[in-house]
Amino acid sequence: MPATPAEQRSASIAVDCMGGDHGPSITVPACISFARAHPNDRLILVGRREAIEPLLAVAGSALPNISVHHASQVVEMDDPVEVALRKKRDSSIRVAATLVKEGEAAACVSAGNTGALMAISRYVLKTLPGIDRPAIATAMPNVLGRGTVVLDLGANAQCEPEHLLQFAVMGSALATALTDEERPRIGLLNIGEEVIKGNDVVKRAGELLRASELNFIGNVEGNDIFRGVADVVVCDGFTGNVALKSTEGVAQMIKAIIAEEFGRGLISKALKLVAAPVLLRVRSRVDHRRYNGAALLGLNGVVIKSHGSMDAFGFEKALEKAHEAVTHRMLEQITRTLEPLRSVLHATAGSEAPVEETMQ
Amino acid sequence: MPATPAEQRSASIAVDCMGGDHGPSITVPACISFARAHPNDRLILVGRREAIEPLLAVAGSALPNISVHHASQVVEMDDPVEVALRKKRDSSIRVAATLVKEGEAAACVSAGNTGALMAISRYVLKTLPGIDRPAIATAMPNVLGRGTVVLDLGANAQCEPEHLLQFAVMGSALATALTDEERPRIGLLNIGEEVIKGNDVVKRAGELLRASELNFIGNVEGNDIFRGVADVVVCDGFTGNVALKSTEGVAQMIKAIIAEEFGRGLISKALKLVAAPVLLRVRSRVDHRRYNGAALLGLNGVVIKSHGSMDAFGFEKALEKAHEAVTHRMLEQITRTLEPLRSVLHATAGSEAPVEETMQ
Repeated sequence: MPATPAEQRSASIAVDCMGGDHGPSITVPACISFARAHPNDRLILVGRREAIEPLLAVAGSALPNISVHHASQVVEMDDPVEVALRKKRDSSIRVAATLVKEGEAAACVSAGNTGALMAISRYVLKTLPGIDRPAIATAMPNVLGRGTVVLDLGANAQCEPEHLLQFAVMGSALATALTDEERPRIGLLNIGEEVIKGNDVVKRAGELLRASELNFIGNVEGNDIFRGVADVVVCDGFTGNVALKSTEGVAQMIKAIIAEEFGRGLISKALKLVAAPVLLRVRSRVDHRRYNGAALLGLNGVVIKSHGSMDAFGFEKALEKAHEAVTHRMLEQITRTLEPLRSVLHATAGSEAPVEETMQ
Repeated sequence: MPATPAEQRSASIAVDCMGGDHGPSITVPACISFARAHPNDRLILVGRREAIEPLLAVAGSALPNISVHHASQVVEMDDPVEVALRKKRDSSIRVAATLVKEGEAAACVSAGNTGALMAISRYVLKTLPGIDRPAIATAMPNVLGRGTVVLDLGANAQCEPEHLLQFAVMGSALATALTDEERPRIGLLNIGEEVIKGNDVVKRAGELLRASELNFIGNVEGNDIFRGVADVVVCDGFTGNVALKSTEGVAQMIKAIIAEEFGRGLISKALKLVAAPVLLRVRSRVDHRRYNGAALLGLNGVVIKSHGSMDAFGFEKALEKAHEAVTHRMLEQITRTLEPLRSVLHATAGSEAPVEETMQ
């Protein structure tokens, strides 16, 4: 197989405009801003035409790289997966995923219900050969300024060692797509560096990873995610989800404490004004919106999930993640990395389990 | 059983002075400072007399509430548990635990090897009736300013639902001892609030907790630890350890970013000087040293573990945790809370597994 070029120029992205806590009022302005910044990309805005078009009109002159694709139904944030999958066949999520399947778009982006997005994407796009269970991955910030790809973040609450190996393969390909690093360093999230640490699943996953061709650097601990010790950190979806939300929680707490201390008394308030530019730089560097956009990996198509509560700035970051995944040929990378591992991965055939619905 | 008084006045504490990354050079000054602040407490400094006494002399006049108890051996940070347990019978950890067993001290404190401390404490002190496995618990900061007790933080990498129930009982008693709250709110760490979320162990643990007399509020997520939604958050030792270290990691990263941004250019440096008092207040409120001192719960005695890398300020905080546990009669609280649950807890008899050696 000839090496694929590192980049292609443009991406065509189907956007579920109805998902998330705020729907079109957030997603459409984000699309306008993105379309202006990426004139070579093409956005297909999926959802209720009557909800989308008035918001598009606000942009003034029509943007040549935005089109609208009507979808009559909306998956609500609290819809059970079965309802989303069986009763809402013309939902904006389903139509966006179908555009990817039919080759009309190279990626889709949604801020909707994660469980529904995962189930629908899996139903429409299917998984890649060798992958039992798709995983949710995102780049978390680290001191080096490059992100650490962490997965699974909640799609699979219970995993077998072989699933962790599959996550490692997919995470490695995502890191390559994001950073051009040919052999990203893979760490296995554990509670100590020594080989004997951890529970049975992690110990056996360590053996599989050591035997693989991946650039496995061994066990890493929770704090190593933020030290940039590894490019990819692999864990089950339960642990990953707890780690992600715990770190979001502590970051929010620190932000609240800084605001409180700079608001305490007149001198502090004056200081806050003077120090504002520095505090703004700090805030921007730890701004979780910048890291918005998790990839649903292992599907036969690029699917990016935005956090449901994001504003337009954050949602645009998710669109950028889709752009990067497409232009860096993430899907081809994953398929290529999977090939030599096919025999190991197929050891798990038949162990397929239903995807958990997790995360908002 | 009559209600015990909420407080007793003083505590007698055996201190392993040899443990931790820095040994007596840190532990002895911390003991001097603590002894001065708590004239009614009594400290027994355990370890090599020749290493401890010269550092005590620095304090000038002898402190009446400090005595030295010689122990000839030291458990190294990288000693395997078997070596610590079988080959070092006169180690400072073992001697300190024995002082608790013999009633010479009401608590012991160590910054040594966690695995060895847990194994030795368990061997010397035994577990409480109804408890299969001791757990490691600490109070993590929250926005309310009171701590959230989280356990297990790494003693048990693999847990059964009954163990999580035991952790809830012990954590509840610790929270009562720390905050005088009679019925602390217990949360089960999970990846969503709904009952159907999570892996099998967590789902079954939820059923046990709902059926118990504890003040169980249901599932909580990682970020809820820092929001103070629950007084106690229960999880297996793998998840707890990852959550603890991830939050330490992100807090350190934010600290580094703040330092970097205030060090960028002359104006920022000047601002840093001006804003120093506010930044200091922020730093003090998120200072992990203030939260140092994890309790090894479920043992027939109070054992407090200090982080191995702590300085004297942090080690003194661990001594204060021991003081609080003793004066608030934590052990009696746990025993009392365990009693009505004895029948449920004994369902797990025979499932006892070896304690993992985790954390430094």
